[in-house]
Amino acid sequence: MADTPVDGFHAVIPAGGAGTRLWPLSRQGAPKFLHDLTGTGRTLLQGTVDRLAPLTGPDGVLVVTGARHVDAVRAQLPELSGAQVIAEPSPRDSMAAIGLAAAILAERHGPGTVLGSFAADHVIGELPRFEAAVRAGVEAARAGYVVTIGIEATEPSTAFGYIDAADPLGVDGAEGARHVAAFTEKPDAETAAAYLATGHYWWNAGMFIVAAGVLLDHLALQLPPLAAGLRRIAAVWDTPERDEVLAEVWPTLTKIAIDHAIAEPVAAAGGVAVVPGDFSWDDVGDFASLAPLLAAAAQPDDGSRTLGEESLVQRLDAPGALVLTGERTVTVLGIPDAVVVDTPDALLVTTRAHAQQVKGAVDGWRSRGRDDLL
Amino acid sequence: MADTPVDGFHAVIPAGGAGTRLWPLSRQGAPKFLHDLTGTGRTLLQGTVDRLAPLTGPDGVLVVTGARHVDAVRAQLPELSGAQVIAEPSPRDSMAAIGLAAAILAERHGPGTVLGSFAADHVIGELPRFEAAVRAGVEAARAGYVVTIGIEATEPSTAFGYIDAADPLGVDGAEGARHVAAFTEKPDAETAAAYLATGHYWWNAGMFIVAAGVLLDHLALQLPPLAAGLRRIAAVWDTPERDEVLAEVWPTLTKIAIDHAIAEPVAAAGGVAVVPGDFSWDDVGDFASLAPLLAAAAQPDDGSRTLGEESLVQRLDAPGALVLTGERTVTVLGIPDAVVVDTPDALLVTTRAHAQQVKGAVDGWRSRGRDDLL
Repeated sequence: MADTPVDGFHAVIPAGGAGTRLWPLSRQGAPKFLHDLTGTGRTLLQGTVDRLAPLTGPDGVLVVTGARHVDAVRAQLPELSGAQVIAEPSPRDSMAAIGLAAAILAERHGPGTVLGSFAADHVIGELPRFEAAVRAGVEAARAGYVVTIGIEATEPSTAFGYIDAADPLGVDGAEGARHVAAFTEKPDAETAAAYLATGHYWWNAGMFIVAAGVLLDHLALQLPPLAAGLRRIAAVWDTPERDEVLAEVWPTLTKIAIDHAIAEPVAAAGGVAVVPGDFSWDDVGDFASLAPLLAAAAQPDDGSRTLGEESLVQRLDAPGALVLTGERTVTVLGIPDAVVVDTPDALLVTTRAHAQQVKGAVDGWRSRGRDDLL
Repeated sequence: MADTPVDGFHAVIPAGGAGTRLWPLSRQGAPKFLHDLTGTGRTLLQGTVDRLAPLTGPDGVLVVTGARHVDAVRAQLPELSGAQVIAEPSPRDSMAAIGLAAAILAERHGPGTVLGSFAADHVIGELPRFEAAVRAGVEAARAGYVVTIGIEATEPSTAFGYIDAADPLGVDGAEGARHVAAFTEKPDAETAAAYLATGHYWWNAGMFIVAAGVLLDHLALQLPPLAAGLRRIAAVWDTPERDEVLAEVWPTLTKIAIDHAIAEPVAAAGGVAVVPGDFSWDDVGDFASLAPLLAAAAQPDDGSRTLGEESLVQRLDAPGALVLTGERTVTVLGIPDAVVVDTPDALLVTTRAHAQQVKGAVDGWRSRGRDDLL
C-alpha cells in the first residue's frame, strides 16, 4: 500500500533555526528552510511538505514555526489550512514546539494518533525508501515506542550525532527496527570511524515518530510542568481563548531540546526504537554540503556548481567553484573550490574548506552592530 | 627656481587606454584614468594634471582624449579651458595623439615650445624628484634632443620595457642625462636581471620631452604623410574649419605608437637622450600593482587593502586581501591575497597572483556577447 496515506498518521514540521553557516543566503528573517537550495524550484520547506503529504494525506501536515515566519510559511504553502500552521510566540526549543503539536493532535484526533517530526530544512532522496522507513516507524510507534529513523552512515562524519542500535525490536511491519542503546553527541574523527566499523551506529537525523499520547505521557514523567503547560494550551488552541492562554503559559515553558527531554532518558529506559533508513539524507549544514546537492545535469563536470542563473557566471581556472548568483555577473578567476554568495546587501567570498567557519563572519558583523545583515 | 613654472614648457596628457586588467573597475566607457585608484580622492587623470600644472602654469596642460571621454574629462578638470582639451574623433594610436598636440602647440606658441608627454593613468610619488627630472629633460630638449625619463629600476620587472643608457649628454642643466643606445621590449626574467646588473638599464615609463618643432621634423623624415596631415589639422584647429578638416584628414592618418615612429629610429641615429628619474612610478597595470599604492595609513598591516569604504569589509583569515567596495558589505573568509572587485553589474573574485589574467575574463564576457560589461 505504498501509494496510500498512513491511517492516523500526522507529520509535524518544526520550521526554525537560522542556518547561520549558510549566511548570507540564510538570514534570521529568511532562514534556510524558506530557500530553494537545490535548484528544484521548491524551497526546503515546500520539499518537506511535498515529501510528507503523500504519507499523511493533504490535511495531515502541521508546520510549527515562529511568529515572524508565519506569513512566509503560509505564502509558500497555500495548500495548508489555517489549522495546519502553528505559530510559536517565541522560540522555546524543540520540545515545546513538537510537544505543542503533539498535544494539539491529541486534542483533535485522540492520543492514539501517531505523529512524525521532520525538520523543514533537510534534503532527502530516494523517496520510496524514505516512505518505507516512515511506514515501519509508524508500526513501531503503534507498539508504544518512541521511534527514530537512523540514517545508514556512508562516511565517518563528525558533523552528526549517532544512534547506537541494539537488539531487534520484533514488531510486525517494522522488521528492521531495533532497540536504541544510546544516542551519542557528534564524535571526533577517530570515534566516528570506530562507530562505523561496528555496523550498528547510524546517523541521528532528528526524526521522531511516536503516538501523541505516548510522547505526552513520557513528558509528564520527565518534565511535568512542561507537559501540563502544553496540554493547557492545546485544550484551547482551536477556541477563542488561544491567545490569552498562550500569552500566559508559553513564556513559562521549559526550554529544552526533545533529544534531552525525551529521547535520551527514554532510550536509557528501553523505550526508544530505531528504524534504519537507507535513503540519502543531508541537513545542508554549510556551503560545502550544498554543492553536491545541486543537480549535476547541465553543470560542469569539474565539480563547479551554480545555484541561480548559470549565464551570470564565468569561471576561469576555478574548478569546483560554487556560485550563488544574485542580479549581477560573477567572475571567479584562479580560486579552485571558491564559494561566492551574491546577495543585495552582503557578498561572501570563501572556499569550500572554510564552509564551517562562515558562522564566524556572522559573529563578526554582529559585533560591529550590523544586525541588519544577520 | 623649483616652485615656478618652466618657461615655454607645455604638458601633453594622452588620456586613453582601456586598462583591461583592471576590469571591472576600468571599463571601455570609464577607463582607469577616470578612476581614483589610490584612495586620495583624485582620479589618476586629476592627479596627473595636479602634478604637471605647477611645472607648466595653469594654462600649460593639454589633454588629448577620445571623443567618447571628452565630457568626463571636462567634468573632472573644470579648471581647463576648451582649448586645453583635444578630442580625437577616433583612436589612431599615440603618435597621432601626441603629434597633433605638438602641431597645435607649434601653431599656438611656435616650434621652439617644449612639450612633455605623460600618460594620464600613471602614479608618481616623490614629486620634487619628478619635477627635477622634468626640468633637466626640458634643458636637454632645448638642446635638440628627443628626451625620455628613465625610471631607476627597483626590481628586475618583466612588465616594463627598458632604456639602455649610453654616454653622458653634456648639456648644462641636465647633468645626469645620457644618450640612449636603444629601447628594449619587455624582457624575460633572466634578461631583466641581466639588465639590472649592468646599472645602465632603466625602466621606460613612456615619458617624452621634446621641442614641438623637433618632434615634427623627425616625424616629417620618418612618416611624411602623417606629419603633413597633423600640420594640416593643426593649422585650422583654432578656426571654424577644424571639424571639416578633421573629418577629412584624421581617418587617413597612420596608426603607430610614438615609440616605433620616433623613439626607436631616432635613438638609433643618436638623437634621443634619457634623464634618470629617481622618483617612484607605477603604471598601475593590474590589481596586484594597485594594492601597494593604497595608503597604508589606517589599513591593516597584514598587507590587506581596501579601496572604497573600509567599514563595508570584513576579512577573516585573509591576509593581503584587496577589496574594492561598491554599495554592499564584502566578507572574505580564508582566501589570502584575494582580490574582490564589487561593481553594480559585475563582480570579480580572484587573487593577486592571477592579476595579469583578468584580461581573459574580459575576453570571456566579450565572447559571450556581453559587450555591456566591457
